[in-house]
Amino acid sequence: MSMRRTITGFSNPTVKYLRSLRDKKHRRREGRFLAEGLRLLTDARECGTLPETLVMAENRDPHPLLSELERAVEQAGGEIIETTPDILAKITGKDNPQAIAGIFTEFDTSLDRLDRDSAAIWLVAQALRDPGNLGTMLRTGDAVGAGGLILIDDCADPFSVEAVRASMGAIFTQSVAQAKWEDFHTWLRAGKGQLVAASLRDARPYRGAPYQAPCFVMVGNESQGLPESYEMACDLRVTMPMRGRADSLNAAVAGAVLAYEVLDNLDKP
Amino acid sequence: MSMRRTITGFSNPTVKYLRSLRDKKHRRREGRFLAEGLRLLTDARECGTLPETLVMAENRDPHPLLSELERAVEQAGGEIIETTPDILAKITGKDNPQAIAGIFTEFDTSLDRLDRDSAAIWLVAQALRDPGNLGTMLRTGDAVGAGGLILIDDCADPFSVEAVRASMGAIFTQSVAQAKWEDFHTWLRAGKGQLVAASLRDARPYRGAPYQAPCFVMVGNESQGLPESYEMACDLRVTMPMRGRADSLNAAVAGAVLAYEVLDNLDKP
Repeated sequence: MSMRRTITGFSNPTVKYLRSLRDKKHRRREGRFLAEGLRLLTDARECGTLPETLVMAENRDPHPLLSELERAVEQAGGEIIETTPDILAKITGKDNPQAIAGIFTEFDTSLDRLDRDSAAIWLVAQALRDPGNLGTMLRTGDAVGAGGLILIDDCADPFSVEAVRASMGAIFTQSVAQAKWEDFHTWLRAGKGQLVAASLRDARPYRGAPYQAPCFVMVGNESQGLPESYEMACDLRVTMPMRGRADSLNAAVAGAVLAYEVLDNLDKP
Repeated sequence: MSMRRTITGFSNPTVKYLRSLRDKKHRRREGRFLAEGLRLLTDARECGTLPETLVMAENRDPHPLLSELERAVEQAGGEIIETTPDILAKITGKDNPQAIAGIFTEFDTSLDRLDRDSAAIWLVAQALRDPGNLGTMLRTGDAVGAGGLILIDDCADPFSVEAVRASMGAIFTQSVAQAKWEDFHTWLRAGKGQLVAASLRDARPYRGAPYQAPCFVMVGNESQGLPESYEMACDLRVTMPMRGRADSLNAAVAGAVLAYEVLDNLDKP
């Protein structure tokens, strides 16, 4: 049985609840996160993930993908909330009467959930602070066929609205794990796995380096880079050409350039 | 002769002026833009670009790089404004008493200023809407030794605070040009230059494709990609592996993966 209801008051507790999910503390407490936009929600549906609640404006324009989504949520026994464009704008922070939002259940992000043998490439981010970078890494992971993204130390929240948006749906296809460095390192060394980082320390050229599956491609914090001890714990340190005055790339860019190089090398017979 | 003055009132016209530079319309009218942070301003100085005005908090902690910057601005006859942490926070939008901001003169972004023979790689962005992506492309351009970034059609403003920040100083080293597609295309065809785009249409694998200098690497709008006619006007269309469910990468990531591939190929004898 699905529920369908209409909310017309700004002070409705459900409006407050939905708004609260923009905040990490509330997401964690509720175990829920928001994803916005028909495209993202359709991506989720196509990956087999439905929102438990769908929020949309009354009198919105019809759209075949929206109808499909509504039907799927109803069939799954989810809740559909219709509201005014004003209230929807308050929830999503966007002045778009076509806006649509879904509430999803956060998934388990413990390391133990990962099957390292299920993919040849894994992305690892250490203290990545920008949710856009984090979402972009998820998107890159999907593109290179990575198994997932492992978040080390104090990273941005993968369930934030910005990270979910930047992932372009990859939050619904890529595994995500969160761990302290020590725990990750212990887990990694308990099985097969090559840890690789872009580094300036004792590094070899990234092109054609001896990558091995499962290859864990690690990037560091946006301003500090990786701690030296983390780099030294890597099996392989590689360096990309830097022809300008800067000595680093954007973290998500560095991860992608490296991941594509790994992909090409592992594909070779 | 340099000027040094102290501002203590929120309603001071200079405070309003500085705040107004966060807005594109005002930047264009004044021909000025803001860059924030000691690191960015030091990057600018090291590239030979000084702010005409430096704004910082009274009673800030001393820092050798800040002293050098102050001295350089003074010697160049620039203006130094000291203000309260509160006012500085209002100007920069950041609650950081160590904040520092500089006002710079916008530079000419006409195509005619570019010397295509000065570099083997150029980046081209079409209708790129995200200033963070734009800044990231500037940063990547610096790293691959590109000549600059050419902005086609209606792109985000390269002089916005967000783009300048994401460029990590590359706004001061990379050339930037802005042009309509037709004008860019006419300019390009009036000389040597290979136009390359990541595409799904009639494309060959990006690895080892026959890149030629000067190579113009073009990426399209974040949600629409490149218009088909623009892709068809390219000399070379290439495709990157997409192993997941998505068929595209983040625009700045796609540009970087492609630019590094071009760099490697052009470097080969």
